[in-house]
Amino acid sequence: MSQKLDEFRKYLEKLNYYRRACTLMSWDMYTATPKLGYQDMADALTWFSTEEFTLSTSEELYGMLASLTEPEEFDALDEVWKYTVRFMKKDLDEKRRVPKDFYAAFVAEQSASMKVWEEAKGASDYSLFAPHLRKMIDMTVQMAAYTHPGKETYDVLLDQYEEGVTAQDIDKVFGELKEGLLPLVHQILSRPEAKCRFIGRNYDPDAQKRVQELLLNYIGFNMDAGTTSASEHPFTSGFGARDVRITNHYYADNPMSAVFSAIHEGGHGIFDQNTLAEAYGTPAAECSNMGIHESQSRFFENILGRRLSFWQPIYPKVQSLLLALADIPVEEFVQEACHVQASMIRTEADEVTYPLHVILRYEMEQAIFRDHVPVEQLPELWNQKMEKYLGIRPVNDAEGILQDMHWSDGSFGYFPSYLLGSIYDGMFLEAMESDLGDLDDILCRGDIAVITHWLNEKIHRNGGMEKPKDILKRVCGKDLTAQPLLDYFRKKYLFDSSSIGS
Amino acid sequence: MSQKLDEFRKYLEKLNYYRRACTLMSWDMYTATPKLGYQDMADALTWFSTEEFTLSTSEELYGMLASLTEPEEFDALDEVWKYTVRFMKKDLDEKRRVPKDFYAAFVAEQSASMKVWEEAKGASDYSLFAPHLRKMIDMTVQMAAYTHPGKETYDVLLDQYEEGVTAQDIDKVFGELKEGLLPLVHQILSRPEAKCRFIGRNYDPDAQKRVQELLLNYIGFNMDAGTTSASEHPFTSGFGARDVRITNHYYADNPMSAVFSAIHEGGHGIFDQNTLAEAYGTPAAECSNMGIHESQSRFFENILGRRLSFWQPIYPKVQSLLLALADIPVEEFVQEACHVQASMIRTEADEVTYPLHVILRYEMEQAIFRDHVPVEQLPELWNQKMEKYLGIRPVNDAEGILQDMHWSDGSFGYFPSYLLGSIYDGMFLEAMESDLGDLDDILCRGDIAVITHWLNEKIHRNGGMEKPKDILKRVCGKDLTAQPLLDYFRKKYLFDSSSIGS
Repeated sequence: MSQKLDEFRKYLEKLNYYRRACTLMSWDMYTATPKLGYQDMADALTWFSTEEFTLSTSEELYGMLASLTEPEEFDALDEVWKYTVRFMKKDLDEKRRVPKDFYAAFVAEQSASMKVWEEAKGASDYSLFAPHLRKMIDMTVQMAAYTHPGKETYDVLLDQYEEGVTAQDIDKVFGELKEGLLPLVHQILSRPEAKCRFIGRNYDPDAQKRVQELLLNYIGFNMDAGTTSASEHPFTSGFGARDVRITNHYYADNPMSAVFSAIHEGGHGIFDQNTLAEAYGTPAAECSNMGIHESQSRFFENILGRRLSFWQPIYPKVQSLLLALADIPVEEFVQEACHVQASMIRTEADEVTYPLHVILRYEMEQAIFRDHVPVEQLPELWNQKMEKYLGIRPVNDAEGILQDMHWSDGSFGYFPSYLLGSIYDGMFLEAMESDLGDLDDILCRGDIAVITHWLNEKIHRNGGMEKPKDILKRVCGKDLTAQPLLDYFRKKYLFDSSSIGS
Repeated sequence: MSQKLDEFRKYLEKLNYYRRACTLMSWDMYTATPKLGYQDMADALTWFSTEEFTLSTSEELYGMLASLTEPEEFDALDEVWKYTVRFMKKDLDEKRRVPKDFYAAFVAEQSASMKVWEEAKGASDYSLFAPHLRKMIDMTVQMAAYTHPGKETYDVLLDQYEEGVTAQDIDKVFGELKEGLLPLVHQILSRPEAKCRFIGRNYDPDAQKRVQELLLNYIGFNMDAGTTSASEHPFTSGFGARDVRITNHYYADNPMSAVFSAIHEGGHGIFDQNTLAEAYGTPAAECSNMGIHESQSRFFENILGRRLSFWQPIYPKVQSLLLALADIPVEEFVQEACHVQASMIRTEADEVTYPLHVILRYEMEQAIFRDHVPVEQLPELWNQKMEKYLGIRPVNDAEGILQDMHWSDGSFGYFPSYLLGSIYDGMFLEAMESDLGDLDDILCRGDIAVITHWLNEKIHRNGGMEKPKDILKRVCGKDLTAQPLLDYFRKKYLFDSSSIGS
């Protein structure tokens, strides 16, 4: 190892200690910090974040990265260090183009805007939030102009979450999906609905935790390298492959939320646990493409979890833990897990209508950044689109445009990655079945480990270092397309409904 | 606020952020970190501890404390800052007298010795540990000579844990206690024993957690300023009054351990939650006298918790959570909680024989530091004392001299503080009953809050800033004496056995 690389490695180690402190404090705030200690922990987190920011933008780091990108140094690096140096140099170059005053003003406006958004949502009063939204939009445009002079704002935003994906790509693939999905959704929604018998019964939260353990173990989450806790909203966090943390919430009258959140977060967790061991502690072991990461949580939750054959080997064990399911056959349980309905809230939507929620948001973001529609007109535009796509109209802005927090802190361009995750899943499913054969056959035999192993090898191991488009080429042999996802929906919901219990 | 004080306050804030990171990492390692992530977290903790040590021994801090102890600055400080400056200056002066090389060698030997002790205990082979014990003793003598030149080693050790208490004080009060206690213990042990009917039944750990919640709430632990988790051994940790953390362990066949650990750690926690609010973030809000702190956990656990009247108002609720207690009357439950027996292991001893375990250790430490008994002779000395005081003899060193970890890292002089806690409790009980009247009357009425409030006002609020002897004078109006503890034992176990259910 060259002396320069060794210095850099030590610097990164120090940076990682600060990052660990931040991650741990944040995890603790969501899972353990008591009410009266919250502000103190938040203050400490702010302090360590500031130290971390200072270290990650220092002249010293800039000098190290400049030396390591000189050809004679760079060429001698292995792939992991090449990726790490390139990744951190790009990030640092972008950050250094932002004037300090502007950055501080942006961070301050983010806090202010998030706070007002929360109030506005509580009061269902968009007019409170509108001026902040306007300001976040303007500042986001300005920020993109600093970090990526000369590039289209929205492409810059997309690239943050999904490297190499442009608005042109999204237009094409979302367009394709929308065209196929709208008639499919309308066809499914026109069918008579079966009433669910088991929601509203009593499910002990401790028993739900035991079901979560069972499921995590079943899908291949390694509890020697992971832990679980409770929080208001489920999330995955952690410190690299050896320590991945998953949270969940438990509703006493409905086990479905905890069950499918466990599988979803478990999918994120399995990804993190199986990143490249040699790259531990570097960006090469962290997947920074949100759509690719989301594809793994959704693959486990939807493609596998919402399928009769997934449950057949373990449903009796679930029934032995959740006694209120004793009289519910596995088919009926899975039918509820695959229940399609038009609903207002994205995060509660089923897998078939979910894409329309994201397409709506993508179109709204296009209205904002491409067509410069004034913020005052956005709620009405939102409501019209809901009516057009799902046939329902929000009765207020809390269940309409104010429902998601993303825009309040300037996370424009994030929404598409959720749906890209599902679109990737359609493609991965096609590739997997061509490699392994029919999924139902594998799952029925209780051989889910074969599937998890395929995902580990094909996606998790090197998923940190590759661009999404390169992963698709390598794994699926083709470019981004929504057809496989549409095929999956059609097969599951129109032609082969026995696989979903109906 | 003077400019110097303001600078110092900011420095302390920074130091506290590093301490918080260390405390949080340590808490996480005991309660959440998965097996494969343990070493990474330990490395991060080592890194932050080193940073914290550097900050707390810096020239910069020394300079600040030197200025602030100049009369014109010092006299202008309020009581909290006077205490803080004095406390930190004393600590820093002691640390600065230790040569850096010696300190590093001491820390290294601590780790080595702790590791070997663990192996030796596992193999029940004292000969493995003996050379390390010898070295820890020598280095402890040397360390005390550096930090407190010219003082008796053992007085220096005691003072670390209980400021102002000397070996002369301990000789007197332990002597008094031993004289009264030996005949009492022998009298109690000669009685016929009642067999416990409810140990060995099945107690759901989740239900035990709910009992813990009930008990913590009952005794006055504030869950808005605290949280709980599970760990192998129960402990209390945290970040000052607003965020106190308690752990517990749950045995499926015996609820007593979790029940009394909850009350014990709850007592520590209530102390921390009720320290002086104005002193938050300074040493004046942390009680550094271990015996005083321990007196509060033991007051709740033993003086209150092992008493029929404590349980009368809540036992039916406990029975509704722990169904296996349904046929056990409250009297029988309390009788088991007050069961006195000769046993080998200090941490499992009942309140009456416990003092003899500590007196034995104190006498061993005197043999080491005053009489210079060679380490080879210590196991036999231990076993002779066990036989003399409790009539039982360890069959191996794992249940004899190797049982406690304290000596392995050089924590000589710590044991007496456990028993001082109980001796203080006898005195506090006397003072409390003279203020509030008979405790059983208060507890029967469910008025335990009155008792907790008395402890808050008399001990917790200012317990951080006062020396133990001064607290005794203020609260009890007298000097350290074991008579009240002996009176409490005699009344409870000889004359008024209905209060313990028998």
